[in-house]
Amino acid sequence: MAKEAKTLDDLFHDTLKDIYFAEKKILATLPKMAKAAQSEELRAAFEKHEAETEEQIGRLEQVFAAIDKKPQAKTCDAIVGITEEGAEIMKEYKGSPALDAGLLAAAQAVEHYEISRYGTLIAWAEELGLEDAVSLLEDTLEEEKATDEALTEIAKSAINQQAEAA
Amino acid sequence: MAKEAKTLDDLFHDTLKDIYFAEKKILATLPKMAKAAQSEELRAAFEKHEAETEEQIGRLEQVFAAIDKKPQAKTCDAIVGITEEGAEIMKEYKGSPALDAGLLAAAQAVEHYEISRYGTLIAWAEELGLEDAVSLLEDTLEEEKATDEALTEIAKSAINQQAEAA
Repeated sequence: MAKEAKTLDDLFHDTLKDIYFAEKKILATLPKMAKAAQSEELRAAFEKHEAETEEQIGRLEQVFAAIDKKPQAKTCDAIVGITEEGAEIMKEYKGSPALDAGLLAAAQAVEHYEISRYGTLIAWAEELGLEDAVSLLEDTLEEEKATDEALTEIAKSAINQQAEAA
Repeated sequence: MAKEAKTLDDLFHDTLKDIYFAEKKILATLPKMAKAAQSEELRAAFEKHEAETEEQIGRLEQVFAAIDKKPQAKTCDAIVGITEEGAEIMKEYKGSPALDAGLLAAAQAVEHYEISRYGTLIAWAEELGLEDAVSLLEDTLEEEKATDEALTEIAKSAINQQAEAA
């Protein structure tokens, strides 16, 4: 047995710190991806999601308040790794016709990580009876899913053809 | 412009190497997660997915063959980060009632990364006219989605209550 038996409350709090770090990292990364994007449509999508991410960080701060904790970030190795892959694409595919397709794929990997995390946090918040947290987290989950779908549409409509044509 | 204009073929090949590394890393990680799991149901789910992962690696090797390349793995920073988080849970929540809930969340983060990657690879393979690859990748994507859903069911049915009750 561990020295102190950690419970679902601890796991919820730890995971909240993890996604708080992740959202801040994403907020710092999106302007770089917008700047790198070749198509105006993709740039606009990244800029829109940057504004949403700021709001999502605000919602996380409200969830911390709902469990009487101060907002605190804990290094999230997953998002560090995922965004490093995006940075690698920006470097290796700079000036290449496949750059936007690569940026889109990197952004969708980020979205799926977030969808997984928010899905988990919502299930735990429901279990813990944290109704306000459930509502806040669900708002964000819906935005992440909508962003992922919007990226899929952009990918299907233009980017893949562009990358192949060159 | 880059020295050589990389195209969607290059991006597909690079991403194939990335997921090939990821699947091998997951295959090495699943037995550790199965061993750590407290509930028999979760252990069985990890063991089932271990067998599936072996098949998925075989399918990726067929996709490499379909584009006349040798199977090759390229370090995937994302999966390294995601599995490090899982290892951290195993360590920090050892002996705790919330361990299984944490393991489940870690496994779902892995599944979502894979769902994102396979979705991207399928879209690119369709664009490139690689019909055999599309079919192989779709088989795996369906398995990953089914695994994610099975994990959600296990989480909802037992683990969360267990973590809270303790």
